[in-house]
Amino acid sequence: MAHPIGKTYWAIAEGYIPPDDTDRPPEFVSHETACLLNTSDQEAQVQITLYFSDREPVGPYHLTVPARRTKHVRFNDLRDPEPVPRGTEYASTIASDVPIVVQHSRLDSRRTDIALLSTIAYAG
Amino acid sequence: MAHPIGKTYWAIAEGYIPPDDTDRPPEFVSHETACLLNTSDQEAQVQITLYFSDREPVGPYHLTVPARRTKHVRFNDLRDPEPVPRGTEYASTIASDVPIVVQHSRLDSRRTDIALLSTIAYAG
Amino acid sequence: MAHPIGKTYWAIAEGYIPPDDTDRPPEFVSHETACLLNTSDQEAQVQITLYFSDREPVGPYHLTVPARRTKHVRFNDLRDPEPVPRGTEYASTIASDVPIVVQHSRLDSRRTDIALLSTIAYAG
Amino acid sequence: MAHPIGKTYWAIAEGYIPPDDTDRPPEFVSHETACLLNTSDQEAQVQITLYFSDREPVGPYHLTVPARRTKHVRFNDLRDPEPVPRGTEYASTIASDVPIVVQHSRLDSRRTDIALLSTIAYAG
Repeated sequence: MAHPIGKTYWAIAEGYIPPDDTDRPPEFVSHETACLLNTSDQEAQVQITLYFSDREPVGPYHLTVPARRTKHVRFNDLRDPEPVPRGTEYASTIASDVPIVVQHSRLDSRRTDIALLSTIAYAG
Repeated sequence: MAHPIGKTYWAIAEGYIPPDDTDRPPEFVSHETACLLNTSDQEAQVQITLYFSDREPVGPYHLTVPARRTKHVRFNDLRDPEPVPRGTEYASTIASDVPIVVQHSRLDSRRTDIALLSTIAYAG
Repeated sequence: MAHPIGKTYWAIAEGYIPPDDTDRPPEFVSHETACLLNTSDQEAQVQITLYFSDREPVGPYHLTVPARRTKHVRFNDLRDPEPVPRGTEYASTIASDVPIVVQHSRLDSRRTDIALLSTIAYAG
Repeated sequence: MAHPIGKTYWAIAEGYIPPDDTDRPPEFVSHETACLLNTSDQEAQVQITLYFSDREPVGPYHLTVPARRTKHVRFNDLRDPEPVPRGTEYASTIASDVPIVVQHSRLDSRRTDIALLSTIAYAG
């Protein structure tokens, strides 16, 4: 059941957290997610690096995904070394010491209803 | 026409069934789907395993996809060994004894209108 | 400029044309599309085969994509050997004699607003 | 941090800029984007070529993505050699002299609410 699947280096070229009111239930605040799946029997040490259009990359952000677990990382929640600016175009790479699978999603709630997008990330 | 295409091991890192009223037509209840395509001339024995953020994997869920058929599996309908909890982040792997193709979709109907996402799964 | 890119065999595991009123502008009628890109200097002979959950595959549907052209094929418009049923789960394979690129999209307009999904198809 | 990831030749088979009023905030005007990520230490020279259903390809459009930067290219903004027509089906290839990652997105705002789609592009 813990047969490892995935790669150790991934990229998400699209990135944009819509700036909106945070005065709503948390699940309806616009957000972007990197869903990480670690099917291996080892904890995964993960490093996320953010790329921007007009300044040097920021990071790495350090995360762990325990063995045989998934972690849905909200870019909105990244804090160290700095928060992800809203309304700003960015991109990201995700490096892991064990194979993982990465999928990118966004929920946009700036209008009355929500819009969703998702794609498997690019495995390097 | 039955030239087999695909792989035998797939992963979907994103997973979330929005919790909503089920008091609506079934096609508009929020749901997640793993669309499986078996173009081969053999029945595919498929095993789905679910991964969570805070507990051990659950499964396998056993399914068959007949030769030259597609099966659009609603995660909402999985029952054995246990139902998929709503409003909970999960991920999944799909293992098959013959090559299949897997695509992931979600319909979210928590608001007035619906939102959709879809992506080809990751082939291991 | 006509450097060929792509593969000759593709699969789309998700397929569903929402059944809705056709009493609206054609671009807002719910539809599914297979977008085909032929960057080569040769016309592409394309064969689409449809797979269902409960009966034998249907097809092939024959199409051509001229050299250095794209064709966005609406599944709604396929007629020969038979139309694609609405409100029915299906899947498809796309075979071509020259390399092409295939992307799958759906526009769902059953509610007031529209929902979109898209993914690169699976290249065999 | 600048470990290069990606490929030098990409394709996006889907392309359509919905024709709508431009009398709204720019971020809500319907648009299509090719998000380019250049993690290398060299500036990327990028050439985009557009393909249509009924005429010869147009391009190349010349862009640069600086080292360790992302650029989210709006097809709406391409001007030279000619603007991208609205309400017209097209496709595109993206060639770069250094490896990059490409993701395709659309925001459709023709109705009251917005719809989104996104997918990793096809790497040749």
